[in-house]
Amino acid sequence: MKKVNAYAAFEAGEKLKEFQYDLPEIGNEEVDVKVDYCGICHSDLSMINNDWGMSQFPLVPGHEIVGEVTALGSEVKGLKIGDKVGVGWYSGSCMHCNQCLDGQQHLCGTAEATIVGRHEGFSDTVRSHWSWTIPLPKNIDMKKAGPLLCGGITVFNPIILAGVKATDRVGVIGIGGLGHMAIKFLKAWGCEVTAFSSNPNKKESILAMGAHSVVDSTNPEALGDIAGSLNFILNTANVTLDWNSFLVTLAPQGRFHNVGAVLEPMAIPAFTLLTGEKSVGGSPLGSIALTKTMLDFCVRHDIYPTVEEFDMKDVNKALEHLEAGKARFRLVLKA
Amino acid sequence: MKKVNAYAAFEAGEKLKEFQYDLPEIGNEEVDVKVDYCGICHSDLSMINNDWGMSQFPLVPGHEIVGEVTALGSEVKGLKIGDKVGVGWYSGSCMHCNQCLDGQQHLCGTAEATIVGRHEGFSDTVRSHWSWTIPLPKNIDMKKAGPLLCGGITVFNPIILAGVKATDRVGVIGIGGLGHMAIKFLKAWGCEVTAFSSNPNKKESILAMGAHSVVDSTNPEALGDIAGSLNFILNTANVTLDWNSFLVTLAPQGRFHNVGAVLEPMAIPAFTLLTGEKSVGGSPLGSIALTKTMLDFCVRHDIYPTVEEFDMKDVNKALEHLEAGKARFRLVLKA
Repeated sequence: MKKVNAYAAFEAGEKLKEFQYDLPEIGNEEVDVKVDYCGICHSDLSMINNDWGMSQFPLVPGHEIVGEVTALGSEVKGLKIGDKVGVGWYSGSCMHCNQCLDGQQHLCGTAEATIVGRHEGFSDTVRSHWSWTIPLPKNIDMKKAGPLLCGGITVFNPIILAGVKATDRVGVIGIGGLGHMAIKFLKAWGCEVTAFSSNPNKKESILAMGAHSVVDSTNPEALGDIAGSLNFILNTANVTLDWNSFLVTLAPQGRFHNVGAVLEPMAIPAFTLLTGEKSVGGSPLGSIALTKTMLDFCVRHDIYPTVEEFDMKDVNKALEHLEAGKARFRLVLKA
Repeated sequence: MKKVNAYAAFEAGEKLKEFQYDLPEIGNEEVDVKVDYCGICHSDLSMINNDWGMSQFPLVPGHEIVGEVTALGSEVKGLKIGDKVGVGWYSGSCMHCNQCLDGQQHLCGTAEATIVGRHEGFSDTVRSHWSWTIPLPKNIDMKKAGPLLCGGITVFNPIILAGVKATDRVGVIGIGGLGHMAIKFLKAWGCEVTAFSSNPNKKESILAMGAHSVVDSTNPEALGDIAGSLNFILNTANVTLDWNSFLVTLAPQGRFHNVGAVLEPMAIPAFTLLTGEKSVGGSPLGSIALTKTMLDFCVRHDIYPTVEEFDMKDVNKALEHLEAGKARFRLVLKA
């Protein structure tokens, strides 16, 4: 029996406390990973606060993990002790449904979410299915790689799904943990990138990341000025927006893609979609193979989140920093 | 000066009356067509009733025209006197914007709608730009071809846009003038076709058209039974539906495509799109080249709307029949 030293919330909205638990004997298809770094995602905060009504306490958050393989079940494929690996929002999937067999494991109806009903990355050790324990490319920067496993793939997948081309004009709404990674990807893609932000203080750093312009997302006139121009918009914000005013900024056949967990139904005028042959879509994370492809792309282009590092023992300070909207732009805990 | 004998509404919602008007000298790029048949589309009714606030009276409806070329301007390309041709919802476009140059003339921002601010097909003669005067394939059935030019291309284009495959399971909502053509196309595509209808009296004829099953679109339980199964849904109804209950019938990565002119914004839960990687789109008509492709496809597969024919002098009787919801499934006027 292995003892895990972790930080857990014992009740919704509470500060995290030290927490020890026992890992049972390792399963045939499971892998144990010593945590080096773990990113903090806004969904960790949502889970701590039980915003989605599916949290189980004590809850050990953390699902942007990079570390080193320390133990392997007998049937594990493609990994060996000492390999550097990453684990994101999913820690397993059934491997035999149509989605899994078709390489879309992130759409598996019974995919195991890393921090739903199980403990994960704010700790010294995590355990996951071999398939979702992603080998990291050589030369990756471990200090910054964690957030790629959740936030990174969440914004990378839509770019692939929408078939974004280098010649496209694209927009990103909400320049936080996810949005700032989207800007870096789209810059590398060769696109003309417009950032939509409601925070004028972020403008200089957004331009430095590679955006060609920053538009005030709260200013209808500014949106009107770029009507009909964008081929693709990625929305990373999780609040209700004036959807139509953004759809109007799309060029004919433009795509609006949502990765923000907006709770209220989106009011979408059918006429705007119809007359411009536009669409509104969404996606969660991405497949296993695409996550590997993204990691290779990141190393090749030196694309990483802009991170602020905290020691894991200072996790509550880090969570306060995030909740106050002060993260620039992604937080990482060092184990 | 050519005299045109037509039927016009002189005020919103009024019965049509005989109406004569003069055509000015033909323009260099224009074509005159003697009308053989003209379909009646639900949008003719919407325009007569000024439902969209853009009708100009007197208004000569009719935009599903097939006939014969009788006059040509000096710069007309690809047509000669006596050619059999069709004219649909668009009678011209600018030919020099990005959309026109890119072969997406139906997305031209200044495309000329056949019955908006101009007179068209409930008459003996129509005039249009050569580009939108579509040559008909040999051996096409003129009596039934008219509705292909608007209703037909409106449901054909989404099948192309969504990349529907023979192996797909597809659904069609609203089995009227548009929906019944969609079923015939999707049957020819090789798909498993589910028809969503609120009218049990149509069931036998819908199955005879090639649908594999008919689901009562007003029954939540029936929708629940096919949850997660459809790769593509085409909505031809123009009323507000419980959108999410249809989105739930989509398989992962499924597409919902709207061609119904629904006036109220659609309430689309972002979570449904996000978790299933689904999308909601829309489109108007289709391009010139795609319209030609569709007509060839129709001749090859013997696909035509199921029509009821009226003499043009009985246009008011035909419109009453349509307005009463009795059309089975598309009405055509014989000039």
